[in-house]
Amino acid sequence: MSEQSPRRRRVRRSKPNIEQLPWLQLQNSYPKMELLSEQSLDAIHEASLRILEETGVVVLNPEAAELFREAGAKPCHNGERWSLPRDLITQAIAKAPSEFTLHARNPAHNLQMGANHLNFCSVASAPNASDLDAGRRSGNQEDFRKFLRLSQFFNIIHLTGGYPVEPTDIHPSVRHLECLRDLATLTDKVFHCYSLGRQRNLDAIEIVRLARGISQEQLLREPSLYTIINVNSPLTLDAPMLEGLMAMAEHNQVVVVTPFTLAGAMAPVSLAGALAQQNAEALAGIALTQLVNPGTPVMYGGFTSNVDMRSGAPAFGTPEYMKAAQISGQLARRYALPFRSSNVNAANTVDAQAAYESVFALWGAIGGGCNMLMHGAGWLEGGLCASFEKFVLDCDLLQMVASYTQPLEVNDAELALDAIADVGPGGHFFGTQHTQERFENAFYPPIISDWRNHESWAESGAPDAMSKANLVWKKALAAYAEPEMPSEHRTALDAFVNKRIAEGGVKTDF
Amino acid sequence: MSEQSPRRRRVRRSKPNIEQLPWLQLQNSYPKMELLSEQSLDAIHEASLRILEETGVVVLNPEAAELFREAGAKPCHNGERWSLPRDLITQAIAKAPSEFTLHARNPAHNLQMGANHLNFCSVASAPNASDLDAGRRSGNQEDFRKFLRLSQFFNIIHLTGGYPVEPTDIHPSVRHLECLRDLATLTDKVFHCYSLGRQRNLDAIEIVRLARGISQEQLLREPSLYTIINVNSPLTLDAPMLEGLMAMAEHNQVVVVTPFTLAGAMAPVSLAGALAQQNAEALAGIALTQLVNPGTPVMYGGFTSNVDMRSGAPAFGTPEYMKAAQISGQLARRYALPFRSSNVNAANTVDAQAAYESVFALWGAIGGGCNMLMHGAGWLEGGLCASFEKFVLDCDLLQMVASYTQPLEVNDAELALDAIADVGPGGHFFGTQHTQERFENAFYPPIISDWRNHESWAESGAPDAMSKANLVWKKALAAYAEPEMPSEHRTALDAFVNKRIAEGGVKTDF
Repeated sequence: MSEQSPRRRRVRRSKPNIEQLPWLQLQNSYPKMELLSEQSLDAIHEASLRILEETGVVVLNPEAAELFREAGAKPCHNGERWSLPRDLITQAIAKAPSEFTLHARNPAHNLQMGANHLNFCSVASAPNASDLDAGRRSGNQEDFRKFLRLSQFFNIIHLTGGYPVEPTDIHPSVRHLECLRDLATLTDKVFHCYSLGRQRNLDAIEIVRLARGISQEQLLREPSLYTIINVNSPLTLDAPMLEGLMAMAEHNQVVVVTPFTLAGAMAPVSLAGALAQQNAEALAGIALTQLVNPGTPVMYGGFTSNVDMRSGAPAFGTPEYMKAAQISGQLARRYALPFRSSNVNAANTVDAQAAYESVFALWGAIGGGCNMLMHGAGWLEGGLCASFEKFVLDCDLLQMVASYTQPLEVNDAELALDAIADVGPGGHFFGTQHTQERFENAFYPPIISDWRNHESWAESGAPDAMSKANLVWKKALAAYAEPEMPSEHRTALDAFVNKRIAEGGVKTDF
Repeated sequence: MSEQSPRRRRVRRSKPNIEQLPWLQLQNSYPKMELLSEQSLDAIHEASLRILEETGVVVLNPEAAELFREAGAKPCHNGERWSLPRDLITQAIAKAPSEFTLHARNPAHNLQMGANHLNFCSVASAPNASDLDAGRRSGNQEDFRKFLRLSQFFNIIHLTGGYPVEPTDIHPSVRHLECLRDLATLTDKVFHCYSLGRQRNLDAIEIVRLARGISQEQLLREPSLYTIINVNSPLTLDAPMLEGLMAMAEHNQVVVVTPFTLAGAMAPVSLAGALAQQNAEALAGIALTQLVNPGTPVMYGGFTSNVDMRSGAPAFGTPEYMKAAQISGQLARRYALPFRSSNVNAANTVDAQAAYESVFALWGAIGGGCNMLMHGAGWLEGGLCASFEKFVLDCDLLQMVASYTQPLEVNDAELALDAIADVGPGGHFFGTQHTQERFENAFYPPIISDWRNHESWAESGAPDAMSKANLVWKKALAAYAEPEMPSEHRTALDAFVNKRIAEGGVKTDF
């Protein structure tokens, strides 16, 4: 339960006129969906251990391979793969914490991961951006920064999820430096770094330390940065990802291991098989974090979805996705690991499809007990586009989910027996004292939903949800204020980033 | 669990090209959401019993009042209301069956109500109809019939929910006769009759008997018709509704008692209070059915939602609606009564809002363990409009929910260990035998969702979900075939309806 219910603490801003919930540490204390019996869940667990032991995994980094070997892994398949024995896996994952704090540079924005805690990220990693005015374009720094400002403005966004759009106008050798500086300064919320080789992660770890203005020792005690590790399905742990995973684990920073198991493509077409493979890949990555640094914070990521078998196109927010998300949550709880899921859809515009696939995905994620919802706001086109209108629409959806997860108060005052007796049969409650005392904060007031009657709505130009959202993100950008940072932190941060840029960042061959 | 999983039995029609699931007797065997503790649920139960005993209800029909009096009710508030003692209520509702069969004229379309059974109705009672081509207009017989044909065509619609649109071009004195004849002939699924005075219900009971071609005795044994009783909130049981309730209960036909408790308007602004009032009103109506005819089939209907406190407009598919639906389900299970919920939204067009409010409503209803989902397809504008595009979109949503509720198969073949071993790290599953054997029916194939990449989608004219739905309902109407009815049944049915029309139906004063 949050310390304070959102309807008691609603922020009302007169300028601009965007009514939003206050910052909230959410908890989802409702029962989680148990779709599978214990027996079926065990069968998936056992299958994934057999996959790791019998089929084995490819480990494309010698240090990681050596850690696995020391823990009991054996080379197999002509030395091309590693067979990971079940004891290695079960003993390693047992060392991972079930709950931890992820520190933001603004301590009010610290996050709890695990148990019933629920945190929403903004969209990440889209190659394109779009809005209703300017249409669709390749990712660039201007759009990147706009999305960061929106992520800071909307209280329902607890942390940024990576680069909302890939700023392709910044050279890859220094892109991570420019982007991480923006992430550390344009918002004061927790941020993510990509695992694209050890040096970029080390740069990120230094940037978050400088932004927080803390010592190396404090940073080692306080997880303050996270990375997503996408296993290269099937069963391949690639080199840059492994370097990032190890660098983060060495520094006690958060690793979210998320196999991208598309049933019918890089995973079996049967959902049980895809989940067994997801689980095998997740457990391998999670085990490695604990071999690097026992007790380092790690999360179980589930991203199993299906493809359109007529075209091979990936699909999201489908019935299969819902089941996979909820069963992934069961698996994460089985291992007492925090669970990451996503708010996804494959629509090309912010229409009914975008909304229904998103809410089905939310249903899957919330029912699955997710602790961190990636791509919470702005994801479109199966991740190929970050949409400004979808961002705002999703903030509304996330606020509705937040309101839904607030437990209903049942007590004498709320049961309203006196008001019901006073009003009596045939009356109404509009003017009663009971209503007067509560009406302002009784219900969630949506940002987008249009509840006017048809005539009023038609007279005002018949706006649809997408066109309403278009107005809101512009208002939000106009109202954005850069969060303060002590000048000595900023100076140190800039000095480091500028030095690293001057050094050429991380060399690329183009 | 259904007898056969939908992915095994998919109907593929080449003409028209609408791929839909076969007719399915759905079961939702997943755990239901328990939002309230037993203690809080008891508090709502106790509050509702106190409301009935202390505040009392208005009973606007002398026969119904006499039944209550004989069972122990006492006049109160100067004889204007009846105080219903708790024993009257608890003893009466205990006589209601927890599960029953609702018979259709096509026995393949018989429905089970109660337990985990899940049935979807089409939209009901909209005063207006709309489509993308012709816009919005007052309800009329042509649109009424089109919606019935769509309800017959789509297998995911288990029963019709009333008049999809009110055919205002038929005089009210004979409207029920014309409409019931259409309901009995244009579909072979279970249908509903409105409770607008005893005679209309008696006409409906005779029409369903003739359509099924059965004896009076058989009809009395076999519930074949249902009615929705909306209590006139707060706490008033009005005369025409009571006449209908009693006529149906006398004939062992199904009564669905659904108070329309809008929190902040005709019910307390606090959700706990609105639910206590809903529960009181529902229990009063349900008790009366059992006083009329102990054991008669009855359902607990929950329709509590909230209003927009800024305008007074009713809102649907809100966080409050979700909670109310799931707590209503808890209450229905407490009384071992089948539960009715709804697929609702307050959008003015088939945009993102229409979709997200609907899926939130579905989340509430399915998590609440609903057995009958009213307004399953076609509801728009808070029920003021039946939309042809929304109808098709909702059929897609309902099919997705149906697919989600099919439990995942977990066995050796589905776990796919051999396929995973064969493919190995770095491979893919596109051409494998495991995929070949399953790909055609592995995943739910949506009717509306557009999963093409952006370029292909843009080249095809960038259709949104609403415009795709517009094509589908026209195809469906073109493919509709009137279900067969034995000619002797049809002759008898027409003779009765024509005679009653010739008699003037039910006299009105206009």
